Amino acid sequence: MTDTIDRDAAAQPVKTIMRDTLADVEQHDSVRDVAAELTADEIGAVLVGGPMGPIGVLSERDVVTLVAMGADLDNEQAQAVMTTDLVSADVHDSIADVGRQMIENRVRHVVVRKDDRIVGIVSMRDVLDALLAGV
Amino acid sequence: MTDTIDRDAAAQPVKTIMRDTLADVEQHDSVRDVAAELTADEIGAVLVGGPMGPIGVLSERDVVTLVAMGADLDNEQAQAVMTTDLVSADVHDSIADVGRQMIENRVRHVVVRKDDRIVGIVSMRDVLDALLAGV
Repeated sequence: MTDTIDRDAAAQPVKTIMRDTLADVEQHDSVRDVAAELTADEIGAVLVGGPMGPIGVLSERDVVTLVAMGADLDNEQAQAVMTTDLVSADVHDSIADVGRQMIENRVRHVVVRKDDRIVGIVSMRDVLDALLAGV
Repeated sequence: MTDTIDRDAAAQPVKTIMRDTLADVEQHDSVRDVAAELTADEIGAVLVGGPMGPIGVLSERDVVTLVAMGADLDNEQAQAVMTTDLVSADVHDSIADVGRQMIENRVRHVVVRKDDRIVGIVSMRDVLDALLAGV
């Protein structure tokens, strides 16, 4: 039983694995539209675009919480229910550090900033994939 | 920049990190009830219990897909929409191997079997946490 994890990968900057297709949904889109986007792209969260760039994140978890609350999914707008207090990392932070942020903050997605601008998003799947890649 | 991953943790059997509270919802529960369970427990998936034990898994992703489809969440039963083709591991499989199964099968949860019985479930979060634990 040999199980070696790729230490080099763990130390790489997160920018090497982030997704940089941003603002997948708009602030006035309905939660139903966001669910369709999440399903079509098989992703766990989308960035919500505002007039000046991304203004929040909406995740599968958020949608499920709204379902549990009995919210009106066709009339609830993305901007009203998105998370704006984003867990974020710098493009130069290591993949392992971003993974630790996910565990500590109980989130599956971290937005990636360069200076003060959001330039990408990274998922727990991306982090795990990178850590196991060298095996 | 030092980033060391816990190789010993990666080689541990998955049974050391699995959750063994099973059958959180019943087969006739509605999708809305399942969403409430997922939200209350802050988990990404539940095992669906049948008369003889767990018969499937229902995840956040499944709920979001049903929302996208416009399904009737109060009348759709767990057993009708759950995943029965479960990605499973043996209690003795290593944590790293279970992580690889998640990546390859694009799932966030793997059920854990001992002989032919489901005895637990493990999430991507549990795997990542274990890999980063020794750092």
